Amino acid sequence: MSGNANRGLLIVLSAPSGCGKDTVLAELQKKIPFKRSVSMTTRPIRPGEQDGVDYYFVTDAYFEKMLREDKILEHTIYSGHYYGTPRTAVDDWLAAGETVVLKIEVEGGGNVRRLYPDSVGVFLVPPSMQALEKRLRARSSESEEEIQSRMTIARNEMRFAMQYDYIVVNDRLEDAVDDVCAVIRAEKCKSSRCGNQISEVNHYAES
Amino acid sequence: MSGNANRGLLIVLSAPSGCGKDTVLAELQKKIPFKRSVSMTTRPIRPGEQDGVDYYFVTDAYFEKMLREDKILEHTIYSGHYYGTPRTAVDDWLAAGETVVLKIEVEGGGNVRRLYPDSVGVFLVPPSMQALEKRLRARSSESEEEIQSRMTIARNEMRFAMQYDYIVVNDRLEDAVDDVCAVIRAEKCKSSRCGNQISEVNHYAES
Repeated sequence: MSGNANRGLLIVLSAPSGCGKDTVLAELQKKIPFKRSVSMTTRPIRPGEQDGVDYYFVTDAYFEKMLREDKILEHTIYSGHYYGTPRTAVDDWLAAGETVVLKIEVEGGGNVRRLYPDSVGVFLVPPSMQALEKRLRARSSESEEEIQSRMTIARNEMRFAMQYDYIVVNDRLEDAVDDVCAVIRAEKCKSSRCGNQISEVNHYAES
Repeated sequence: MSGNANRGLLIVLSAPSGCGKDTVLAELQKKIPFKRSVSMTTRPIRPGEQDGVDYYFVTDAYFEKMLREDKILEHTIYSGHYYGTPRTAVDDWLAAGETVVLKIEVEGGGNVRRLYPDSVGVFLVPPSMQALEKRLRARSSESEEEIQSRMTIARNEMRFAMQYDYIVVNDRLEDAVDDVCAVIRAEKCKSSRCGNQISEVNHYAES
């Protein structure tokens, strides 16, 4: 019988900036039940944001204490502020058999997947880099320079795609969401996760 | 760029006798498009059967010629008659990018998967061996001895479950069909099958 009998499924979702991670996650939440980790940050709370919903807003000292105690799964520093994923909630959820989806920056995805070797990586990509550029232009009032800088970052991030288990093209949002749903449903049927199920079926045969 | 760029997906579906393979396949065909191989046999055609639909009905000489020419993927002999899966159709379909589902006896499943290392194995199981026995009793007018013999075979076949990539429990038919649909959809998103897609996305970036 497998040790991680009823262990939950951990999905690591990454994508180059502008590929629609948040929209896909929001739609996914309407379709299937899963737990989604709230990140922790040291940047000041903005008007309209809620502590514990958008982020856990903490002090530098607290964040650094969490880091020292290995309670942060992965973190990054952006504009002088820490951003990280608290570890405890994820471990508790997995132990309780929940499906957990972590939205992780491309850079941090590899680290999380090393920490949780049975996690499943999903990489969201745009239908084309031209489409991505168009989306970035449409949604922001950023300067040409900023858009080009984002595109350079996205092109670099695309190189990580093949390190993920699945690649989902976000062309039509609905299709992308259905793809992620299928990945979650299929992964739960993986024989490597079903050892206990087989034991149970056989158990009845022998009892 | 991957060599099997637009190659189709081969699903090998196996299950202990009585687990509802045929019903699952019939329902699956209503939901998604895929090609399903017609087996070849040397047994006589029965009333109501159609050549090329239920089976290809051939002579021993023809079947043995196909075997010698390596045109049979896997075969078995049952009650003195050959039963086998012709290879040509499968290869042609895969080359054309089709999804192909092969219903293969548990014994033959491993051979097909060795011949097609990128194929995906799905093993259908009953919710319990008791449930399977109940189904066998309900659907047939077989003797107690025959039922016990089928159950012994089924118990042996269950031992192959973990050699398949996915295990689908056929408790509620609809759920089992949705599981197989999810496996097919998810497998098409596997990064190992999407190399060319990533190349295409990047191509636009560089052009």
